[in-house]
Amino acid sequence: MANSASGEGMVPRIVRVLETFDSDRTVQTASEIGRRAGLPSSTAHRLVEELVSEGVLERDDQHRVRLGMRLWELALRGSTALRLRQAALPHMERVQAELREHTQLAVLEQGEALFLERLSHPDAVSNITRVAGRLPLHASSSGLVLLAHADPALRERVLAGPLIAVGPQTITDPAVLRRTLAEIRRSGFVAAPGSIEAVSNGMAVPLRDRGEVIAALSVVLPREAPVEPGIRALRAAAARIEAELRSSRA
Amino acid sequence: MANSASGEGMVPRIVRVLETFDSDRTVQTASEIGRRAGLPSSTAHRLVEELVSEGVLERDDQHRVRLGMRLWELALRGSTALRLRQAALPHMERVQAELREHTQLAVLEQGEALFLERLSHPDAVSNITRVAGRLPLHASSSGLVLLAHADPALRERVLAGPLIAVGPQTITDPAVLRRTLAEIRRSGFVAAPGSIEAVSNGMAVPLRDRGEVIAALSVVLPREAPVEPGIRALRAAAARIEAELRSSRA
Repeated sequence: MANSASGEGMVPRIVRVLETFDSDRTVQTASEIGRRAGLPSSTAHRLVEELVSEGVLERDDQHRVRLGMRLWELALRGSTALRLRQAALPHMERVQAELREHTQLAVLEQGEALFLERLSHPDAVSNITRVAGRLPLHASSSGLVLLAHADPALRERVLAGPLIAVGPQTITDPAVLRRTLAEIRRSGFVAAPGSIEAVSNGMAVPLRDRGEVIAALSVVLPREAPVEPGIRALRAAAARIEAELRSSRA
Repeated sequence: MANSASGEGMVPRIVRVLETFDSDRTVQTASEIGRRAGLPSSTAHRLVEELVSEGVLERDDQHRVRLGMRLWELALRGSTALRLRQAALPHMERVQAELREHTQLAVLEQGEALFLERLSHPDAVSNITRVAGRLPLHASSSGLVLLAHADPALRERVLAGPLIAVGPQTITDPAVLRRTLAEIRRSGFVAAPGSIEAVSNGMAVPLRDRGEVIAALSVVLPREAPVEPGIRALRAAAARIEAELRSSRA
């Protein structure tokens, strides 16, 4: 049902429309959306019209559109991401209050680390992550933890490369990456100095629910900061979040 | 394009599918979704299939589906809700640290107060709001602030009733509500004890961007708590968030 002349369904076309929005492009015209989504102009205009009438997109006074509050509500209201994030937030705040740097929560999504939450401190070091932003698994401390506990097939796919260098010390050698992942499974944490940026050191620990690693909790500290206090704070927070997830099921 | 036999477009049907999920119902079968969305079973199964293949929904090992991380990402990545929420969060944390009660951020959406963020404290009083949850405008302190500054047509529509009593002291008299809204515009805040629950007192102030009220910042305090410290903390936070929104545009 609902196929275009090209045979593509409506759902992929709607997803392509929504994909044209990001943190640097929050407002667009229907024509811009059509061009970026690779849709014929008339299709784009009709689809934008339908999305606006349902509140999925909102029109401003200059006839441009942005993502609607209704979409935000539909995506969050019944989401397991929100449940996880609400359980984690108070404990992330404690980590942030203690370390005064960025504190983040990430999950594995389509072969990348997707950041569900990021708390920042005004004096914190540079950090490229964003809420709803992504980073490669092999390059971010969160991603390394997620990859260490991922399905072996995904792990082999990532190990097969290419392993892009994001920062000066990103692991780009498959043999080193394999050893690092084994070490993460053994030690229960990772510190990845310079993997994203030369000036910072990302540290992460796994977060488990029903015995499975479901997320990574991480901090970004200045390069020279000692590792031990960061890992200790993350582990304490992870234990509290895991207890919260257990009790929220009871 | 993409109309069913009933003449309904695909976008409304997709929205109806997503609407069947909420915080009490995060996992469903395609048949349950079809029943709740009022869609024929075959349509529901096909639509769920399409949504799963795009990651908008995710299937679990028991063949049930839940909202996908991909939907969460698409809804948040380019959203103005996220921008507002990220600007507000550090300042909401300060309010919460000071008052040790619930702190919330709400916007006006389709005639109700939609909560974008809620920070809680383990010892805080009872509070029915949820992230991505809604409350009636006349009953919640956030809603009263939003209504006071809303489009006059919406205000008159709400004043025309019905004004449902949510708590023992919800304003249900249109004349009292009209006076309250005028008083909010004059004083710049509201305290609504017992409006939602007998034991608590909701307090809220407006949050402005480019001169327009775009959100309400609120706290829920115990009924007996003095009003002045709550309002003072909210006003200080609102001023800092407004400064942040201005500087993020520069």
